[in-house]
Amino acid sequence: MALHLWTNALIATMAPDAPEPYGLIPDGALAVQDGRIAWVGPRKDLPLALDDAATAYDAQGALVTPGLIDCHTHLVYAGDRATEFEARLNGASYEEIARAGGGVLSTVRATRAADEDSLIRQSARRLRALRAGGATTVEIKSGYGLSQEHEAKCLRVARRLAEEEDLSVRTTFLGAHALPPEFAGRPDDYIAEVCRMLPVLRAEGLVDAVDAFCEGIAFSPAQTQRVFEAARALGLPVKLHAEQLSDSAGAQLAASYGALSCDHLEWLNEDGARAMAQAGSVAVLLPGAFYCLRETRVPPVDLLRRYGVPLAVATDCNPGTSPCTSLLLMMNMACTLFGLTPQEALAGVTRNAARALGLADRGVLARGLRADFVLWDAHNPAELSYALGINPRRVTCIEGQPA
Amino acid sequence: MALHLWTNALIATMAPDAPEPYGLIPDGALAVQDGRIAWVGPRKDLPLALDDAATAYDAQGALVTPGLIDCHTHLVYAGDRATEFEARLNGASYEEIARAGGGVLSTVRATRAADEDSLIRQSARRLRALRAGGATTVEIKSGYGLSQEHEAKCLRVARRLAEEEDLSVRTTFLGAHALPPEFAGRPDDYIAEVCRMLPVLRAEGLVDAVDAFCEGIAFSPAQTQRVFEAARALGLPVKLHAEQLSDSAGAQLAASYGALSCDHLEWLNEDGARAMAQAGSVAVLLPGAFYCLRETRVPPVDLLRRYGVPLAVATDCNPGTSPCTSLLLMMNMACTLFGLTPQEALAGVTRNAARALGLADRGVLARGLRADFVLWDAHNPAELSYALGINPRRVTCIEGQPA
Ligand SMILES: [Zn+2]
Ligand SMILES: [Zn+2]
Repeated sequence: MALHLWTNALIATMAPDAPEPYGLIPDGALAVQDGRIAWVGPRKDLPLALDDAATAYDAQGALVTPGLIDCHTHLVYAGDRATEFEARLNGASYEEIARAGGGVLSTVRATRAADEDSLIRQSARRLRALRAGGATTVEIKSGYGLSQEHEAKCLRVARRLAEEEDLSVRTTFLGAHALPPEFAGRPDDYIAEVCRMLPVLRAEGLVDAVDAFCEGIAFSPAQTQRVFEAARALGLPVKLHAEQLSDSAGAQLAASYGALSCDHLEWLNEDGARAMAQAGSVAVLLPGAFYCLRETRVPPVDLLRRYGVPLAVATDCNPGTSPCTSLLLMMNMACTLFGLTPQEALAGVTRNAARALGLADRGVLARGLRADFVLWDAHNPAELSYALGINPRRVTCIEGQPA
Repeated sequence: MALHLWTNALIATMAPDAPEPYGLIPDGALAVQDGRIAWVGPRKDLPLALDDAATAYDAQGALVTPGLIDCHTHLVYAGDRATEFEARLNGASYEEIARAGGGVLSTVRATRAADEDSLIRQSARRLRALRAGGATTVEIKSGYGLSQEHEAKCLRVARRLAEEEDLSVRTTFLGAHALPPEFAGRPDDYIAEVCRMLPVLRAEGLVDAVDAFCEGIAFSPAQTQRVFEAARALGLPVKLHAEQLSDSAGAQLAASYGALSCDHLEWLNEDGARAMAQAGSVAVLLPGAFYCLRETRVPPVDLLRRYGVPLAVATDCNPGTSPCTSLLLMMNMACTLFGLTPQEALAGVTRNAARALGLADRGVLARGLRADFVLWDAHNPAELSYALGINPRRVTCIEGQPA
């Protein structure tokens, strides 16, 4: 198959052990064959054979990074909550909003009522916004269906979106997201139902990983553990919404199941960080939710650094607490609100985001990996985190194909 | 001249006395002639004569708002401060950064060194980002030249940008932005120089308004007053960077000169709010700077509401404290961080932003005003403030011309 060669690029490989920050290669070259990276390095070191064989592309001095990876979204849902956002700012209390049918269950109602095509249409808009900002891989959680039928529908929509919108999607089953109204007062029965759904959805090829929301307002550690047991029985990796609003020791629990990631983590304690480090779990930071909720307690970034826990950054795209579809904005918020460095922020949406999804074939620009990369109008990778509300993306290549 | 008619639109006129929130007209129609709005209202009330005469455009159900107005930017400058942003997040102190040549004077150096074409090129990128997010009018301040020659250059660049980028620009002379190095220790001498520059720049047609930075770290109220006197002598309206980091009673001073606006205002007190109300000055809120600086003291929004001071919202686009080029993001931050309602946020980037620039011909969709408007992919104007990082703009019309 044809060889493509990109030259005149400032390449941020994000290779983990590179001597330069960002694995930066000035005047770099990148060769692609069969959708994979055939070679990457300084132009001057390019093997002559490659140079001769290839179709040449001039990157015109662009910064090249790995394609961005959003490793935590809830982007398949119907309706929005703009009206609720407005009511709250007009002084309505949470109670009044709940009485008026607002909150997460309003999204569940709208999502259950929507057919697959309508869900595709509404969700594609968000996925396109993510892609326009440089995303090439997006994780999508279920969790607004909360029944066999509707969870399956949402996960099928996620799979269809991957095909129709031409980017990589990983699905996560988040049946244990909220208690559906028909199980009100019976959370254990609902967890049993979640554990019953999982093998069916898995058999339909709809589940790449399993997640739960472990929190006072959601499910207990014991309930979470039952979901994790069901996942383990099927050989599925787990993740957890942990320690967002309180310390439930969810991170330790998730780590004991070898979790790919623990997400949010504002209330994480040292035992949790140690357990995550030992299990190799990634800490997925979600500054959009922190910002939208006007939280004041930031995740313990220094603690996570000290234990060597890899940091990822994601949008948490959801209609209630983070109606966000820009990874660049999340990079800025991770720096501004949580004190990440721009290099950590970029690693958080590339290398470490891949790891949070269990994907070893992307997130870094290195020989043999997927040729997912983005050309940016920037002279310095720090600009991606620094600027607010500009989108310097020029070209995205997915498996080597410019789009 | 030809008549254009837009139908099938949800029109948020933002008319100040409309009974509906946002002056909302479902199934609305809008007629344009000679770049002005010839008629706007419910489709069913459209005069037959207009319907017959016009070229028809179908808005396909889009939300239509006035073109957005960014009434406070410093967007003409050279270089960026991404490196400094990164150094700070890597632990460098402000002192170390200043010793390494960082801070506002690094932007002054780069801006002085840049020629007009290079400044155009660098600044156009930011202006285009604003326009892509729905802006049709942008205020641009000088203040990185700090000498006759370089302030003139920056203001000429602002005028050229208006022509080359085809949107409306208002220029503001902000000679009293920072003390240039050649005047170190002699702020009064520099203020005399600012007052000497102003009539020259004015005679060249470069100045629509005059601004100053009144703050402990910048210029005193007495120095500010000298600049305002020079402006008054020329019949130029004034504005002020006031009460951002401390209470200097700048708002009262500016109000006593009938200021178009006082901007920032985190430390505004009740006397200041009263004075602004009496003078008819607009309060321009700049949540981007608040966010980037991790400030905790918010502007006294309730106080401003109580005194009936009109609220505007702007980007403060500048390389140091708000490298921001998205009014939509500022609307979200105004709601999320300052508690504005979505209706106040939209009025803040339309009707009240026009007023902060002394422009009576725009900011509202009403007969006789400029036909500057935007079609958005939204069902509800609150969505514009609610969503983070999506750009739902479909079409912008400037003086009736779709672009
Ligand atoms: Zn989440
Ligand atoms: Zn400013």
